[in-house]
Amino acid sequence: MKSEILVDVSRATAKAVGPEHGVTPREVQELEPRISEAHQKLQEERAQGKYGFWDLYKDEQTFASVKETAEAFLSKQIDNLVILGIGGSALGTKALATALKPPFYNLLSRRARKNKPRLFVMDNIDPTTFKAMMRICPPSKTIYNVISKSGETAETMAQLMIIVELIEKKLGKSEMKNHVVVTTNPRGAGAKPSLLHPVADTYSLHEFTVPLNVGGRFSVFSPVGMFPAALLGMDLNAFRQGCHAMDTKCQTPELLENPAYLCAAYQYIADVRKGKRISVMMPYADGLADVADWYRQLWAESLGKRFALDGTEVYAGQTPVKALGVTDQHSQIQLYREGPNDKIITVLEVQRFDVTLRIPNTLEHIPELEYLRNATMNKLLAAELTGTIDALKISQRPVIRIRLPRINEYFVAQLLYMLEVETAMAGRLYNVQTFDQPGVEEGKKIARQLMGADK
Amino acid sequence: MKSEILVDVSRATAKAVGPEHGVTPREVQELEPRISEAHQKLQEERAQGKYGFWDLYKDEQTFASVKETAEAFLSKQIDNLVILGIGGSALGTKALATALKPPFYNLLSRRARKNKPRLFVMDNIDPTTFKAMMRICPPSKTIYNVISKSGETAETMAQLMIIVELIEKKLGKSEMKNHVVVTTNPRGAGAKPSLLHPVADTYSLHEFTVPLNVGGRFSVFSPVGMFPAALLGMDLNAFRQGCHAMDTKCQTPELLENPAYLCAAYQYIADVRKGKRISVMMPYADGLADVADWYRQLWAESLGKRFALDGTEVYAGQTPVKALGVTDQHSQIQLYREGPNDKIITVLEVQRFDVTLRIPNTLEHIPELEYLRNATMNKLLAAELTGTIDALKISQRPVIRIRLPRINEYFVAQLLYMLEVETAMAGRLYNVQTFDQPGVEEGKKIARQLMGADK
Repeated sequence: MKSEILVDVSRATAKAVGPEHGVTPREVQELEPRISEAHQKLQEERAQGKYGFWDLYKDEQTFASVKETAEAFLSKQIDNLVILGIGGSALGTKALATALKPPFYNLLSRRARKNKPRLFVMDNIDPTTFKAMMRICPPSKTIYNVISKSGETAETMAQLMIIVELIEKKLGKSEMKNHVVVTTNPRGAGAKPSLLHPVADTYSLHEFTVPLNVGGRFSVFSPVGMFPAALLGMDLNAFRQGCHAMDTKCQTPELLENPAYLCAAYQYIADVRKGKRISVMMPYADGLADVADWYRQLWAESLGKRFALDGTEVYAGQTPVKALGVTDQHSQIQLYREGPNDKIITVLEVQRFDVTLRIPNTLEHIPELEYLRNATMNKLLAAELTGTIDALKISQRPVIRIRLPRINEYFVAQLLYMLEVETAMAGRLYNVQTFDQPGVEEGKKIARQLMGADK
Repeated sequence: MKSEILVDVSRATAKAVGPEHGVTPREVQELEPRISEAHQKLQEERAQGKYGFWDLYKDEQTFASVKETAEAFLSKQIDNLVILGIGGSALGTKALATALKPPFYNLLSRRARKNKPRLFVMDNIDPTTFKAMMRICPPSKTIYNVISKSGETAETMAQLMIIVELIEKKLGKSEMKNHVVVTTNPRGAGAKPSLLHPVADTYSLHEFTVPLNVGGRFSVFSPVGMFPAALLGMDLNAFRQGCHAMDTKCQTPELLENPAYLCAAYQYIADVRKGKRISVMMPYADGLADVADWYRQLWAESLGKRFALDGTEVYAGQTPVKALGVTDQHSQIQLYREGPNDKIITVLEVQRFDVTLRIPNTLEHIPELEYLRNATMNKLLAAELTGTIDALKISQRPVIRIRLPRINEYFVAQLLYMLEVETAMAGRLYNVQTFDQPGVEEGKKIARQLMGADK
């Protein structure tokens, strides 16, 4: 088998689940001119540098600087990496860490962690959780990476203000630079100044920047995701190679050769023609669980739009839902099979796990368990996956399969890059502004007023 | 303020979000006879003992035995509690532990854990995760609670077979009874024999039973949830009192006095009359995050049904979605405000957290942060909640608010009990069989065949 990510839409076709719920060859054919046109447009915008996520992986200098800085911090024997950030500043790192670090990573000994720090992603402002983190992570052994493009994110800045007091009290002001790293907007060049700039200046903090043309949810391959990844010992070069491989694959407008466009086309047709208002992402691997959460933001914020580009009111956007195989077979599959046929389910599969676990020949006195004996947990997982998607097919529920050969930096980067390109294409098909999020401003404004700002 | 759970549906009314999206007084009035009738029916079934979840909390003897057994195991200085179970055998324990144990509980010292074990809920069969758990939890220091009503759950039995080999090898067969506890169907009395019965017999294991008339997703107050809770040092009496308080409240068919029926009525009308096909549960507290996951199963498996009780094809059921405040404001709110108006959002609020965290007077040189200075993180969380639901109201999105005075055993029990009663009532309104899950059998059957069973 070729060692690459495979996308299989055959179970989302009319042939598999009927024309009411599945995509017909004609519908795909009809969409092809729009795909070509959108491809053209995306390529143009990319060439103009309008949106920067496409080329983050090419920025050798930034990757080198990220790696160098991470090594410098790692040489200080830090025990904890705390991310102060929310949304796009947090979800990429969570997805990568869950995929690429061992399960129960924070419970492992320093040695088993290969001298890399534990990870705490503080993407909420629950006071109980934040206080607990502060107890567990003494500042002398901790590096805090504060991430906000504008430096105006209330949650993140409140966290930072607490951490600044902690460090000043426990270690002294001069130690700030050894424990806090800033990731924010670049300076000058037409950029809105970030409130994190004066913070970095005052304390002489190391400062990473996110290109102005890269939004939070598309920033995982910028220092937002890559600096934490480097501190955790991930292979940045393999990320770059994975992005490059997928970028190369996604250069063609030919649907059958472009996995990102293929997924976008099927999801779009499923939504607007077949009433599949819900896009479930269901990885069959614990390691990929948080990729589904990362995707939730990407899909929801990019496509959930009131207005089309031409100003008409559309209220567009599928609702992305995270599920986990096999766990959620015992929670959601009843609904997915027998409830409203309003979902398209993307199953993420892993061809080979790093671990093979044999089910031994025990409980011999129970003949009903014979079928499990001397099989492997891996085989059982694969059988349940097949059983579930076959059962979904019987109920005429469309399924897209995405298969990774393994879970490693190279393939996870391919997967995330593919989902980003898919989202960019889908935004074009829905004809919305993929890269903004006007709907989140109102709530922020009201919250600020309640806090007494803008008086 | 009265110290009880408050349900506020005012933001889901036509007055708040318009008649197209909100519930009108007339729609509620029209539903009242059906509520009364359903109430009658539910009371009858309860009196007949058809469904047992209502009265689990009254079973003094079982609670006493759970407590006694837990104390006996705790006296052996166990370090780890491993749950082998999936779906309803896992989700209740996860919800309770996340709510009632401190954040990062497994990272705390034995002393900070008050000599209680760490918790590992193994509700998947990812071989990497299971192997990692085995490395972290030496069997000599671990108790395994294997939970399956039928003893036929493939995932759970495969796990058990592996653990049996591990214990036999490391500790010897005679030690099984000191490390494995079974929770399963009762024996005799018309019950289908469980495959866990011969396991318990062979190794003389302690065996808890789940009443035959209690399904997995309604079993949290049976030994399924209560034995792990007792091992983790939770206050079982407070659970019982919470259930009792909510049970008492839910005795009336009067909507305005019955919080469970009120929620059921609003969700039902929102779905069938206003096209709110998606039911989001969005706790504004990390501790309640896994209550939303528990609810996902409860709502999806109970209401996601192809056939109504009269045999007509209905494909009923809202899709439950888990979101987390404030985190998901930076991920989902864009969609919830500007995407399709197809959701009703239930916000879970906590009036008072155990911790108050002041935002100190730091970063004084940045005037834009003045509004945060000397406020608390608690106040910021509350302001963001208000900002978000106000913004949702502006976009005419219906919201139900459920407020807990605090997160403790008493109120969490009330909340779960309320959601169970709500689900029972909703099932009646949808006119489906709330307590079965026929749609999950097909996938299991295919998986068993692929594993070579039934040959």
